[in-house]
Amino acid sequence: MEKVIELSYALDTFYLLMSGALVMWMAAGFAMLEAGLVRAKNTTEILTKNVALFAIACVMYLLVGYNIMYPAEAVNSVWPGISFLLGADNEAAEIIKLNGDADPDNNSTYSNMADFFFQVVFVATAMSIVSGAVAERMKLWAFLAFTVVMTGFIYPIQGFWKWGGGFLDGLGFYDFAGSGVVHLCGATAALAGVILLGARKGKYDKDGAITPIPGCNMPLATIGTFILWMGWFGFNGGSQLIISDVANANAVAMVFVNTNAAAAGGVISALIAAHILFGKADLSMVLNGALAGLVAITADPASPSPLLATIIGMIAGVIVVFSIITVDKLQIDDPVGAISVHGVTGIWGLIAVCFSNKDATIVAQLIGIASIFAFVFITSFATWYALKMIMGIRVTEEEEYHGVDYSECGMEAYPEFTDSSKV
Amino acid sequence: MEKVIELSYALDTFYLLMSGALVMWMAAGFAMLEAGLVRAKNTTEILTKNVALFAIACVMYLLVGYNIMYPAEAVNSVWPGISFLLGADNEAAEIIKLNGDADPDNNSTYSNMADFFFQVVFVATAMSIVSGAVAERMKLWAFLAFTVVMTGFIYPIQGFWKWGGGFLDGLGFYDFAGSGVVHLCGATAALAGVILLGARKGKYDKDGAITPIPGCNMPLATIGTFILWMGWFGFNGGSQLIISDVANANAVAMVFVNTNAAAAGGVISALIAAHILFGKADLSMVLNGALAGLVAITADPASPSPLLATIIGMIAGVIVVFSIITVDKLQIDDPVGAISVHGVTGIWGLIAVCFSNKDATIVAQLIGIASIFAFVFITSFATWYALKMIMGIRVTEEEEYHGVDYSECGMEAYPEFTDSSKV
Amino acid sequence: MEKVIELSYALDTFYLLMSGALVMWMAAGFAMLEAGLVRAKNTTEILTKNVALFAIACVMYLLVGYNIMYPAEAVNSVWPGISFLLGADNEAAEIIKLNGDADPDNNSTYSNMADFFFQVVFVATAMSIVSGAVAERMKLWAFLAFTVVMTGFIYPIQGFWKWGGGFLDGLGFYDFAGSGVVHLCGATAALAGVILLGARKGKYDKDGAITPIPGCNMPLATIGTFILWMGWFGFNGGSQLIISDVANANAVAMVFVNTNAAAAGGVISALIAAHILFGKADLSMVLNGALAGLVAITADPASPSPLLATIIGMIAGVIVVFSIITVDKLQIDDPVGAISVHGVTGIWGLIAVCFSNKDATIVAQLIGIASIFAFVFITSFATWYALKMIMGIRVTEEEEYHGVDYSECGMEAYPEFTDSSKV
Repeated sequence: MEKVIELSYALDTFYLLMSGALVMWMAAGFAMLEAGLVRAKNTTEILTKNVALFAIACVMYLLVGYNIMYPAEAVNSVWPGISFLLGADNEAAEIIKLNGDADPDNNSTYSNMADFFFQVVFVATAMSIVSGAVAERMKLWAFLAFTVVMTGFIYPIQGFWKWGGGFLDGLGFYDFAGSGVVHLCGATAALAGVILLGARKGKYDKDGAITPIPGCNMPLATIGTFILWMGWFGFNGGSQLIISDVANANAVAMVFVNTNAAAAGGVISALIAAHILFGKADLSMVLNGALAGLVAITADPASPSPLLATIIGMIAGVIVVFSIITVDKLQIDDPVGAISVHGVTGIWGLIAVCFSNKDATIVAQLIGIASIFAFVFITSFATWYALKMIMGIRVTEEEEYHGVDYSECGMEAYPEFTDSSKV
Repeated sequence: MEKVIELSYALDTFYLLMSGALVMWMAAGFAMLEAGLVRAKNTTEILTKNVALFAIACVMYLLVGYNIMYPAEAVNSVWPGISFLLGADNEAAEIIKLNGDADPDNNSTYSNMADFFFQVVFVATAMSIVSGAVAERMKLWAFLAFTVVMTGFIYPIQGFWKWGGGFLDGLGFYDFAGSGVVHLCGATAALAGVILLGARKGKYDKDGAITPIPGCNMPLATIGTFILWMGWFGFNGGSQLIISDVANANAVAMVFVNTNAAAAGGVISALIAAHILFGKADLSMVLNGALAGLVAITADPASPSPLLATIIGMIAGVIVVFSIITVDKLQIDDPVGAISVHGVTGIWGLIAVCFSNKDATIVAQLIGIASIFAFVFITSFATWYALKMIMGIRVTEEEEYHGVDYSECGMEAYPEFTDSSKV
Repeated sequence: MEKVIELSYALDTFYLLMSGALVMWMAAGFAMLEAGLVRAKNTTEILTKNVALFAIACVMYLLVGYNIMYPAEAVNSVWPGISFLLGADNEAAEIIKLNGDADPDNNSTYSNMADFFFQVVFVATAMSIVSGAVAERMKLWAFLAFTVVMTGFIYPIQGFWKWGGGFLDGLGFYDFAGSGVVHLCGATAALAGVILLGARKGKYDKDGAITPIPGCNMPLATIGTFILWMGWFGFNGGSQLIISDVANANAVAMVFVNTNAAAAGGVISALIAAHILFGKADLSMVLNGALAGLVAITADPASPSPLLATIIGMIAGVIVVFSIITVDKLQIDDPVGAISVHGVTGIWGLIAVCFSNKDATIVAQLIGIASIFAFVFITSFATWYALKMIMGIRVTEEEEYHGVDYSECGMEAYPEFTDSSKV
């Protein structure tokens, strides 16, 4: 009998680790998506940001974030345990959390280390959302400084509210894998940054005309989307946390099917919406449609039927097309559409939970949305503002003109393909 | 004891889901392979087709395809259950299939939902084969209309013949993971389309001279091939369907080793064949050699020894080189070699089953090949022909000259790398 | 009870197969990393080398390498069993090894075939390290000839010393997943090749000035690094070999966390080091920092705490920056930094084992390092030298000037992006 329990523990641990590896892979997806949608002269810098933010997220979450989000002892349901930050002896608690031992007394059914691994790659996802929205004009080091605050503090605090046992969990707010906790959180931090940063030069002229700035490498954007799609099977599929019995295995399988169905629905509706609006099969809208479907289903991929999941994705695909157009008209310059994809359709996903999940209430969902948005917007805005005062967050006009690759990284992404006279 | 059965169910479900995720990843492989082998001016469109066909395949297979291929009640062994299509109350049957519950009475050993997920990504693979062959001159919307018919009806009907319990299964036709059901099927649909579509302008001149049209991005083609190679471990490895006992685990391990060995064999022989024929290490032939080995071993990756698997792959690598040259001489314009890779070496793989599998007979294999080819060719040709009459399947000469990216998608794939004066 | 043992066997087999698939995926990572860091005119050739070396490694390891590394009967602890090579009847032993049967008498806990699959992808990794260092001027066929010797003989013999039960294992040399056996081995073979080959034309002028030769495609180099990072979860995570009980599952989870932590640490320290040295956020150094962290932790990812793993990675990130600069000053021309990343930080990782692993001794580690380096350097140098005499290893000056893509592969990687007048 004991061997059976060990096997169950081993299977759940392996399942969490494979899921985490797929979520880690999403970092490559964001990097490629963003590198494909910016201009050649800003490509090296966006790649550097994506690699560096992942690394900083891992270190900050290890040092403080995980302890804040899943504290041994919370101060109250809004403010997580900060004893660690205040120097109290929290080491023992953390060691228990990080040593990976099975504690027979607390019915641990998988390695705590595997849980940590699965959580640490989530915070990197939230941060990856930000880098795309502020692309092509933000200072590299200001962005990395923001990453420290976001991954160490802002994300974990609101994450604690839901997943660490805080007040949103108590209220009955439902967010299976993070349409709110991860995607809305990332998009809100991006929005605050973009507002303080301003639009790229040449994007909007004085009388409100919008100049499209096409991405330089659509195959990169496409492989980035496929990577994210694949990684989402770990992101949503792993969020069941346990797979070792029939009920959980069925739930995980349902999550896989619905995640895929919602992405497919988003592709089809965005393709049709773009065709109606522009008369063309706009690939960037199609890619955003896939991501919109994925973000929307993330709030509850286990309850809907596959047909309903497809429809939730289809609605997300239409929403994202109109949202991108609207955000652009508001002169909020988001080069990759991250605010629409992760924020607007994240909200849609959180509301759509009520269609199929009997435990969810629209009131709780709206309180959750408002709480996450307000907290992340205020704290992010304050952080971006402080950085603007201290070190500046925007490169100079000349640096922007020549591309941030030169000024920030000292190297071109494609030295042989682009003609410097074209810049 | 009950917990042991639950664990077995969970492990098989997880194994199918991870395998399915790897097969889904093959969609990215096809997209990159094809985007790398076409010209820059047709890249956005081929990417759009690849993303959209995957989405359409998922929706059509959910709505009708899965029910046709695995009907609750078949009309007979050639014609699957169409009660659902005729409006009969098939909902109950479908709900049972899709609800993912373990039914203790039917000895279900894994989640039905996981099975559906594994199957739905297969149909997308079959369809991805087509997009490459018709690249650079087919109308986007005609292609997507064909996708609806192919993934909803043509693929599922012949799939039913073998995997749904139809007449090919009864005859003893052996096709482990789909050299015939998936690869020959896709290649045959592609052949029918290419014949009706005609060659790209400038490919063949009046006196039969062939102008090579090189692909614009070989690293993309290479990563596409590596993605397919990796995804094939899910495609073949998952087709054992069960891994939870020693015999099945050993079979899956053998499948992994042989799948890899055949791909390696295909690379080596195609490299040598190209060197002998052209005096150069032709990378596109090497990549096609890898894929040819993979397609060939798919019919039976469990029976041969690793050495025999290597040899089967090596022969496939030689066959594909000569097939590509021959198809080109016949003025059948297949920009990526899909007909040779998936069709000709698919046939080779189905015949090679007889070398190591005692249960297979050459007669049954030939009947299977002929049945799949005839059915898919006739139905595909009729579908393409109807589309040609209704909406046209080929872009105008001017659109082809300027590239389908402009006319179909309204955007360039690499706006900064290509000089529009070069077009 | 019997079913429990079968399940345990199945889970371990599945775990090894998924790990092996991730390691196979590293081949794509090396191919993309190297293709991104060379010039456009040498891209097709480096891609061809990477695909072909993987294939040759698989065939050679199947034919002789696996038998040498894990011989049925070793001659002594330095010289593995060569009876097979000498024609003795080793077939039976090999069949046992390769048939994948569970032998109840030898307590086999997973499929031997799965073990073979996991091992065969490791030898390809070792060989992939070499291709980058000799890029842009080595003859394709000379490289492939070296691949035959390296993957069939050199790698397996020193692998036997540690993992096959040879003298290094007896001495207590500790190398969990191959900082020495794989990475130092590959880097040493590369060093021997580079010394005999000489630098690329134009890299160093007569008075020692160094001309940087920038890579042509930084997004490719970045996705290559992300692929390697992801694949490393299989490389290190799978090297525990068993996951089916609590202790092993915890160990695997710890390996995942530490592998990720070390890579993150390497990114951060390389970013800072490059900023201090060059005043820029040098992306190629950041990518090498990630890889350096991964190589360093590979020697023992199970013993350190996550914090110590981060620090080991950080030190590796600094070491690799200074090593790359130093190697360049020594006029050892290594276009991708492979010798520093895999060799120098491999040595650092082997020494760092002593910080956290009580079973390791610095003496045994140094003996291991010296033995692997000496053996691989001498045998590789001899092999490269013989090839130089027999067929030449370097292309002509004119071929190098026009790019090896033309002379070796007869095709350009990016025919539409590069202007041939720029060459």
